[in-house]
Amino acid sequence: MTRVRAVLFDVFGTLVDWRTSIATALEKFGAERGIACDWYAFVDAWRAAYVPSMDRVRRREIPWRNLDALHAGSLDELIRRFSLPPPSPSDRAWIVRRWHELEPWPDVRSGLERLRTRAIVGTLSNGNVALQIDLARHAKLQFDVLFSSEHFHHYKPDPRTYLRAAAMLDLDPGRVMLAAAHNGDLRAAAAQGFRTAFIARPTEYGPAQTSDRFAEDEYDMIVPDVGELASRFGA
Amino acid sequence: MTRVRAVLFDVFGTLVDWRTSIATALEKFGAERGIACDWYAFVDAWRAAYVPSMDRVRRREIPWRNLDALHAGSLDELIRRFSLPPPSPSDRAWIVRRWHELEPWPDVRSGLERLRTRAIVGTLSNGNVALQIDLARHAKLQFDVLFSSEHFHHYKPDPRTYLRAAAMLDLDPGRVMLAAAHNGDLRAAAAQGFRTAFIARPTEYGPAQTSDRFAEDEYDMIVPDVGELASRFGA
Repeated sequence: MTRVRAVLFDVFGTLVDWRTSIATALEKFGAERGIACDWYAFVDAWRAAYVPSMDRVRRREIPWRNLDALHAGSLDELIRRFSLPPPSPSDRAWIVRRWHELEPWPDVRSGLERLRTRAIVGTLSNGNVALQIDLARHAKLQFDVLFSSEHFHHYKPDPRTYLRAAAMLDLDPGRVMLAAAHNGDLRAAAAQGFRTAFIARPTEYGPAQTSDRFAEDEYDMIVPDVGELASRFGA
Repeated sequence: MTRVRAVLFDVFGTLVDWRTSIATALEKFGAERGIACDWYAFVDAWRAAYVPSMDRVRRREIPWRNLDALHAGSLDELIRRFSLPPPSPSDRAWIVRRWHELEPWPDVRSGLERLRTRAIVGTLSNGNVALQIDLARHAKLQFDVLFSSEHFHHYKPDPRTYLRAAAMLDLDPGRVMLAAAHNGDLRAAAAQGFRTAFIARPTEYGPAQTSDRFAEDEYDMIVPDVGELASRFGA
């Protein structure tokens, strides 16, 4: 792997545990306001709305909007579906902002720190720039660079996201590795010539997770966590 | 200044001493190869070629190209002018890459670190993304986000560079501060509603510097260095 000069990480699920983080925050929010709800089901439904809402952008049915806007846009329907009282504008903004304050998996902070001694370490995420900044500051994760779909106005797995990130790194795609917990993301990156690392996050979607529990293709690396990835780079 | 949530720094001159860094590296390069040259004059001429070459991009006389490409493009003419022997391709690449490895002014590393406890700290530079990554890693400067003209395909002081950076921060321009050693950059940012901090770098262009020795306008802050800027933010 000496040829790999930059490792770009998928963020949601790969580096941070969005499900537990948001459900925990909303449980507290609900308890304070006397609102009963299965908040894990709520956050699962919110996350599930992500792909169709992105697809509408992708098919140009709606103009470009960033992930914060997609999260905000899917919230109202969700509130109706879960029969929750309509939140105040400031509560609503606070709820959408939960996606900015997510806890990292326990191996991430030290793993990235070690890996940075051997490679450029960045993100390649569908999260917008402001979201990623807040998230990295909150989780105390240090990156050399943030790449966002917002820079390219195309969402992963659009090939342009991988290729333009590599171009901005001034590197051939073969010198860039995508590290992700999702087979689809990795396949799309590999198709553009990226090196790939599968990081297993078998409980990202909760204990009953069925998809992405295992590496479904041959990747350059298959690792249990970021610490092991750093070790494979000799860190 | 409690309203300022993000401070974006100009890089060349404001954070790093490009002139001494490059001249010192080229002096060593020349000594090893027995090439005599006034390397300070050489780097001054190289920097002076920057504005006209950017302006050709701005006027759309040539398509977008990033700062590495502009530096490479102006090098050949410079080599002729200084009657230097044509460098090998690898020497040529090494010379252009000197812009990626610049020493920070002595107050910068600790000043940015302190300021980051109070605000989002980023760059807003005409340097391309790969250049900024290398530069930050070399100088051990830690940013929350890098903004580059390369993201926008417009060079500062084009108003779009300031406005699009603020938009990606999801902040009104009045909550973003540009910190720079150059009056022109600060005026352009202020015209778009940015807050402004002048950092004096009276020897950026050497001991005989005549321009940008002083703040020529009323800025929100006028400080001698990044440490004092951090102190003004209560850090």
